[in-house]
Amino acid sequence: MGVTWWWITGGVILHLTAYTAHQSPIMAGSTKSLAKGSPAPGPVPDGLIRAYLMRFCPFAQRAQLVLIAREINYEVVYVNTLNKPDWFFEKSPFGLVPAIETSEGQLIYESLIVCDYLDEVSPGKKLTPEDPFQKAQQRMLLEHFFKVENLVFKILGALKNNADTSALKAEFLKKLILFDEIVSKLNTPYVGGSSVSMADYMMWPIFERFSIFGVKDCLEKTPHLHQWYQLMLQDPAVKATFTKPEVQEGFFKLYLQGIPEAVDYGI
Amino acid sequence: MGVTWWWITGGVILHLTAYTAHQSPIMAGSTKSLAKGSPAPGPVPDGLIRAYLMRFCPFAQRAQLVLIAREINYEVVYVNTLNKPDWFFEKSPFGLVPAIETSEGQLIYESLIVCDYLDEVSPGKKLTPEDPFQKAQQRMLLEHFFKVENLVFKILGALKNNADTSALKAEFLKKLILFDEIVSKLNTPYVGGSSVSMADYMMWPIFERFSIFGVKDCLEKTPHLHQWYQLMLQDPAVKATFTKPEVQEGFFKLYLQGIPEAVDYGI
Repeated sequence: MGVTWWWITGGVILHLTAYTAHQSPIMAGSTKSLAKGSPAPGPVPDGLIRAYLMRFCPFAQRAQLVLIAREINYEVVYVNTLNKPDWFFEKSPFGLVPAIETSEGQLIYESLIVCDYLDEVSPGKKLTPEDPFQKAQQRMLLEHFFKVENLVFKILGALKNNADTSALKAEFLKKLILFDEIVSKLNTPYVGGSSVSMADYMMWPIFERFSIFGVKDCLEKTPHLHQWYQLMLQDPAVKATFTKPEVQEGFFKLYLQGIPEAVDYGI
Repeated sequence: MGVTWWWITGGVILHLTAYTAHQSPIMAGSTKSLAKGSPAPGPVPDGLIRAYLMRFCPFAQRAQLVLIAREINYEVVYVNTLNKPDWFFEKSPFGLVPAIETSEGQLIYESLIVCDYLDEVSPGKKLTPEDPFQKAQQRMLLEHFFKVENLVFKILGALKNNADTSALKAEFLKKLILFDEIVSKLNTPYVGGSSVSMADYMMWPIFERFSIFGVKDCLEKTPHLHQWYQLMLQDPAVKATFTKPEVQEGFFKLYLQGIPEAVDYGI
């Protein structure tokens, strides 16, 4: 478990939880998110990175995967992204999670930028290849993956509008099969080689949510991605941040109804 | 001027032009683009980088700015992006310029990935800061810039459909003013500091095209961007790749009509 501490600002108790390597805020997390009207958290303690996250956000999970995989000491501030505190826009100008803050007050937002920064500043083996061409290959692979990701968000948009998703799901399957072919040509267990790398972690949170979008069965038609999915389930950082499908679904039902409490579902 | 050579494949003469530092293929360029039906170019000669470009594409210009600024020896293959050769999809799977090819047959596509790769593999002072936070700052600035860029492409879409663009232009001005405020806080002549950097070059090609989208006058209301614009006009790589507004407009008129010859306008 992490070490939890509190401080009192404007009469409201803020509580943050600090984690060291291999601890999981999501598994440990019983901390409710900060919503509109909450006071801003104080300075980040020396030697820690603060991550502004939302428990069910796939982009926030990207940051958390890297924080755990790179054994970074960090604390989490959960933000209610459905009812954002005003101060959050000073931390993350687009109002999006993840964002991180250092003890020097440096702020970094946008998931891919956050993850690259965390990987670069941390000692030890990097998740991103040092070789410029291999690095470019990972980024190009992600560009292909984004075609899949974009369709997931189109399905989300349709679900929000109570629209029929069958055509979008058929398009999704086509794109996933194309992506499976690309992945098959890599001939490696992970997309970056023989061990887990940045691209694997950037993709994973979307795959973890396939069930809530009703596209999990598509994996049966994409054997290479299916194999990769099974392998990723065994990864320690994935295990530490994994949210059970029934909990995801509980959140998602409330989220689709626009209920701000959705972000604290299950705690 | 560059050194031009030819070879004959399938009865068709291909000609490519090689450039060394500070030479401008656009200024020198009298080479027509390769269209559907053209044979694929052969292997890339040792020690050269081949760039697949389209003369009027802002994303292709990004790559060319970096090729010139980083004094890379390269050759250009102009591709008719309005009537693409089949082989081009083997070079650039999304069918987009820029793409680059090395003499080892490595292929890199997507403008930001191409530019980062070129910067990383070239000796000498990098355009991207080495410091992880400064690097993240440049990337975050670009995320803000992309809000401006996206509106430019919305205006383009409207122009293609002969739709009214006044509402989009008003929205564009708002976004540009917001971006100007962000740039003003940097307090540096270039967006990355006291000398030109990667983010400046990634933004420039869109600014160079403001006149064809009818939004050039917006710069009068964004004093910091206006100052930056004037400064960038003096940059050697910008000068070398600059296309006169009247030539851009000549291309653009044909482009809006869907005429494939647009890409070779003026030669």
